Amino acid sequence: MSDTLWPNSASVDEAAAITVRLIDAVLDRLLRVPPDLEARVYEAMRYSVLAPGKRLRPLLVLASSQLFGVAQRSALQVAAAIEMVHAYSLIHDDLPAMDNSDLRRGRPTSHKQFDEATAVLAGDGLLTMAFQVLADPDTHGDAAVRAELVSALAGAAGAAGMVGGQMIDLIAEKEPLDIGAITRLQRMKTGALIAFSCEAGAILAKAAPEVRLALRGYAHDLGLAFQIADDLLDVEGSSAETGKPVGADAAAGKATFVSILGIDRARAQAELLVNQAVAHLDLFEERAELLRQVARFVVNRRS
Amino acid sequence: MSDTLWPNSASVDEAAAITVRLIDAVLDRLLRVPPDLEARVYEAMRYSVLAPGKRLRPLLVLASSQLFGVAQRSALQVAAAIEMVHAYSLIHDDLPAMDNSDLRRGRPTSHKQFDEATAVLAGDGLLTMAFQVLADPDTHGDAAVRAELVSALAGAAGAAGMVGGQMIDLIAEKEPLDIGAITRLQRMKTGALIAFSCEAGAILAKAAPEVRLALRGYAHDLGLAFQIADDLLDVEGSSAETGKPVGADAAAGKATFVSILGIDRARAQAELLVNQAVAHLDLFEERAELLRQVARFVVNRRS
Repeated sequence: MSDTLWPNSASVDEAAAITVRLIDAVLDRLLRVPPDLEARVYEAMRYSVLAPGKRLRPLLVLASSQLFGVAQRSALQVAAAIEMVHAYSLIHDDLPAMDNSDLRRGRPTSHKQFDEATAVLAGDGLLTMAFQVLADPDTHGDAAVRAELVSALAGAAGAAGMVGGQMIDLIAEKEPLDIGAITRLQRMKTGALIAFSCEAGAILAKAAPEVRLALRGYAHDLGLAFQIADDLLDVEGSSAETGKPVGADAAAGKATFVSILGIDRARAQAELLVNQAVAHLDLFEERAELLRQVARFVVNRRS
Repeated sequence: MSDTLWPNSASVDEAAAITVRLIDAVLDRLLRVPPDLEARVYEAMRYSVLAPGKRLRPLLVLASSQLFGVAQRSALQVAAAIEMVHAYSLIHDDLPAMDNSDLRRGRPTSHKQFDEATAVLAGDGLLTMAFQVLADPDTHGDAAVRAELVSALAGAAGAAGMVGGQMIDLIAEKEPLDIGAITRLQRMKTGALIAFSCEAGAILAKAAPEVRLALRGYAHDLGLAFQIADDLLDVEGSSAETGKPVGADAAAGKATFVSILGIDRARAQAELLVNQAVAHLDLFEERAELLRQVARFVVNRRS
């Protein structure tokens, strides 16, 4: 079909490279800097959302959309929106009052490159623009789909999802959490947005509820595996590879999957979750090969 | 009609009192605190959005909705969403990195009452929830209306609207702006959200474009009049009446309508704008009496 972004046999590397190129072009188009005084906030928004990155969430949106033959333009708009939300969350999480990080994706964080006020506003602007993009008739011809995308993203990103997860993460610096609480925290903080990315294709295609549920199951396991891999990288990775300080969680006294389970059991748990994630994709047969590979890539990545 | 919130002859005080009561009940229902660790961010969201206030934007949503006989439930949901966005903007504007205000609506600001990280998250959570409320089928049965509400609010609140206006406001502390630039700043920073509030009724009622344009014209003049009145209060008001520090703009070295025009010309300009605002409402005849009174109230208020 004409709307295929990559052949079904594409590797994760190939699909990821295509994703980066296409998404960055869409983000560049959506974030034109106006010739006015507010240009500064647009520059800060661009600085963070166009920073080199894996574009994992856009890749998941595009891969889930391709399962259903969703129009490329629709998938790319949603993928751009989710990357805006991801970038906003990093900007605000890095603020001095939050994680106080100076380095992100190998570059100064937003408040270091600009200033704290501009960083707050850049995050606010990206979050707001994500909803504007989803509600735009350009994204889908059916307003019910657009409204559902807004609903689903707001649910994933808000106080019952990512924002609530970040709140718990801050509390975790003072109160030790058990493995159940950490699992819930991570499902909210990173899992919810990953789940939205995986479900986006089904929403855009108005797929049957059981199909959407399968993708949610995949995303749920993938999200936790992703987070455990992140915790492992925080302990084992090098700053040169990850582009951010190593050992930050331990230094902050935060309980993580690794600090509770130990390295070996955490690694085994991640492998188990990946196998579980992949099992949810059986109904898609060979069409979901890329999503299967993404799951394996996520736990084996070095950055 | 059964969906009338107040009689057509209601005074601003009567309508405002009804608005406060109804909106606070809706906000209370939408912001139930969950029995989990993330409760803290919900408490912070409630602290700010339920703080005593004029609820001017909700009043405008309800008044414009009543022009068209829009269902009460729809109007109340949109009014709650706009108050969430207003509260989020106050929380983030008050942060130490922004205006560094300790007092808001007569109470400690969010970062003083909680802490800075919680305040950032509470703002993020309120902004996100506003879009969730607008996209909710509870708000309107027609998904096209819901998507248009999201689109319009995102446009008004984002980098081309409120966020961009706040960016310019920060720049104005260092670079002197002329009257044209200040007018544009205020149209973006406060005018855009007021315009959305006034247009909301027309969007909910799927009113004709020329009707929506009339409301936008009214809102545009009202927004500037409101801001000039605010600047006058900053110079002339007492902290006890306004619930926030007096003279903050002058202390920050910011140019305002009053610093450029002087008190007398600023007051005359506000009066002129109110008359202009009211003139846009002619096509609604006596049905718009409340909106006319709101315009006059806005420039004569003492807080």
